[in-house]
Amino acid sequence: MKQIQALRGFTDLYPREKALQRFVFSAFREVARQFGFEEYDGPIVEPVSLYANKSSEELLEKQTFQIKPRGEDDQWILRPEMTPTLARMVAGKSKELIFPLRYFNIGPRFRYEAPQKGRSREFWQTDFDILGSNSVLSDAEILVAAISILKKLGFTDDEFEVQLNSRLVLQEKLLEIGVRQEQIGEALRNIDRMDKSEVELDDSVKKLIDSSITAEDDPYFKELFQYLKEYGVDKLCSINLRVVRGLDYYTGLVFEIKKKNATGRVTLLGGGRYANLISNFNEKSEIAGVGFAVSDTALLSYLSEKNKLPNTSSKSTRVLVTVFNAESVTVSIQITNALRSSGVSAELYPEIDKKLDKQLKYADRNNIPYVLIIGPEEVENKTYKLKNLKTQEQEAISKEELVKKLA
Amino acid sequence: MKQIQALRGFTDLYPREKALQRFVFSAFREVARQFGFEEYDGPIVEPVSLYANKSSEELLEKQTFQIKPRGEDDQWILRPEMTPTLARMVAGKSKELIFPLRYFNIGPRFRYEAPQKGRSREFWQTDFDILGSNSVLSDAEILVAAISILKKLGFTDDEFEVQLNSRLVLQEKLLEIGVRQEQIGEALRNIDRMDKSEVELDDSVKKLIDSSITAEDDPYFKELFQYLKEYGVDKLCSINLRVVRGLDYYTGLVFEIKKKNATGRVTLLGGGRYANLISNFNEKSEIAGVGFAVSDTALLSYLSEKNKLPNTSSKSTRVLVTVFNAESVTVSIQITNALRSSGVSAELYPEIDKKLDKQLKYADRNNIPYVLIIGPEEVENKTYKLKNLKTQEQEAISKEELVKKLA
Repeated sequence: MKQIQALRGFTDLYPREKALQRFVFSAFREVARQFGFEEYDGPIVEPVSLYANKSSEELLEKQTFQIKPRGEDDQWILRPEMTPTLARMVAGKSKELIFPLRYFNIGPRFRYEAPQKGRSREFWQTDFDILGSNSVLSDAEILVAAISILKKLGFTDDEFEVQLNSRLVLQEKLLEIGVRQEQIGEALRNIDRMDKSEVELDDSVKKLIDSSITAEDDPYFKELFQYLKEYGVDKLCSINLRVVRGLDYYTGLVFEIKKKNATGRVTLLGGGRYANLISNFNEKSEIAGVGFAVSDTALLSYLSEKNKLPNTSSKSTRVLVTVFNAESVTVSIQITNALRSSGVSAELYPEIDKKLDKQLKYADRNNIPYVLIIGPEEVENKTYKLKNLKTQEQEAISKEELVKKLA
Repeated sequence: MKQIQALRGFTDLYPREKALQRFVFSAFREVARQFGFEEYDGPIVEPVSLYANKSSEELLEKQTFQIKPRGEDDQWILRPEMTPTLARMVAGKSKELIFPLRYFNIGPRFRYEAPQKGRSREFWQTDFDILGSNSVLSDAEILVAAISILKKLGFTDDEFEVQLNSRLVLQEKLLEIGVRQEQIGEALRNIDRMDKSEVELDDSVKKLIDSSITAEDDPYFKELFQYLKEYGVDKLCSINLRVVRGLDYYTGLVFEIKKKNATGRVTLLGGGRYANLISNFNEKSEIAGVGFAVSDTALLSYLSEKNKLPNTSSKSTRVLVTVFNAESVTVSIQITNALRSSGVSAELYPEIDKKLDKQLKYADRNNIPYVLIIGPEEVENKTYKLKNLKTQEQEAISKEELVKKLA
């Protein structure tokens, strides 16, 4: 007998869980529609060279799934994130694409690490990016799109907050307190890892990142908050110099949306600005961008925590059409057909030899609201019994009336 | 500089192509809704043991992507098909699930073979299955669901045909002409490969599979065609003893939907019945099923061949709100916000220093139907210029009128 569980760190999504995932995806798609983001997609398998650069060596060696394909020189990888694929795609058509682009993707990503609660080896992530614009206004648009996702899912203003920072501003401040230019990268990495590991920060750095600064302290933040105010979301946002994000390619805005008044894993979404998306592909042109990534599981677990999971049913079926015997089944088929043609979600019970009781139980356990009973008598009279499983009421109904009622 | 193309056999989907894929997926989902199929999902990575059995050794060794994870005993695989995952999931909850199940999945699959036209190493496939029913009626439901997908996509009755067979019937006929029981498996494989390779079939087998049989010749076909007639699809279906399908687990109905009057790769969709989905997991219980798999690319290329590709736009944006300067931008933001809150897909042009001409060109090239022009004069008068890019007509409009007009 074979192993019946999914591999550790991988997840089986039965219809109920898939429906919840689709509920979150539909919020992503609705925000994308409202903001004019276009969906793209790329391969799950990429050459390892796509990710290779000094800073992510650790990520590559320890944290990715690699494939050594027979007869190929290259080493391949299951994509751990989407941005390098996006960069490759944009670089490949930079002459034809119409900038600024607004792109989004929903798809699986993979990371090789010890599976733990809330951290899967395979996880779906959604990336939103605005490419080819370097303006503070596009930073604001991205922040507002991210906030709109939380709102669309039903979170209220007191349930989440946006903590933002600018790596550019922070770098300036680090230089001011005496950190040397060549140490900036390491300093940022240490700040990012501060809470996770035993990194010791210099007292001066610690003091800096714990200092509270307001939008008035810096022209960038000032402009950004002016926009955020017009969007009506400034109250949800605050500046936090501790927020730097883990990815090396961020160069300006960095931000996280966090659970409010919560402990444990509080980050729901994160993103930032990068100066040149396609630097690895094309030395001549530069494409700046700003974006964020968000996973359905973080949002679903917070929805659950707040008792906000929707009552989505994975079964669309409005009516179960029952079957009685080899003669009456022809009418059951015809009526099922007519319902479906009118756009009604209808199931034909596929086992003629099963008793009506069993068919009713099937409908009941699947939360199907109506059952249409078709036996020899009903066929004879061309009038069928429609049973409402919630009220237990039953009415006699013709085929035409039925289609009209349920369509 | 890094390689700018996707790996051979893998595909970048820019928004236009992704929109076409989503168009096909929406047909799958609409048929699933009408027939009451529930969506499930499973891991892209599975243990190799999930697929291991005598008959698919060739598939496994030569045709799959395998991963040897550090620190794990097992060998892992990128799933080449969905059925083994489905079997594992159903076996894992066979006590709680409510049979018969109607399940579908849309997701990527992987096969390791030389990339060629129309055969990718990564491809999306959609599986529909009815599980826990062994009836001819569920065979009919599956066939009709498959046919409904083709119809939903706009194919007419003279553009496709269903060729079906029963492995059970064929086996009986093979035994009748003297093929021994233990040679049946090989005979089926040879019939399946007949057109692809230089397999030599016995003359008696050749004669058998080329013989034309009608629904009246066998009780199974007779019952099936009675149902198909009630569904109104019998004229689209014919029996063809050459159709056996490549997968070993089929035990009854096997079928293919093919392009009509076409040459080359003509199969659009294939499926069949299997006697026991969970035999590898649970020796005590049996779950029969019937299903099919279909890929978006085969359907899209046939849509293209027939000039039926829809005019789907990947940009949802109804109106581009322009920006003029640091003062007027606040009004641009407020109006964009109001439009989005009313459900209108609206983009704010994110670069204040770009001339109006450039902003109009952006809208035009992206097929955005309207542009809202907001300059100092418009802000002053609280009346904005709405330009229809198709007619080139321009009207003065207030914020309230605008929202009303576009919502």
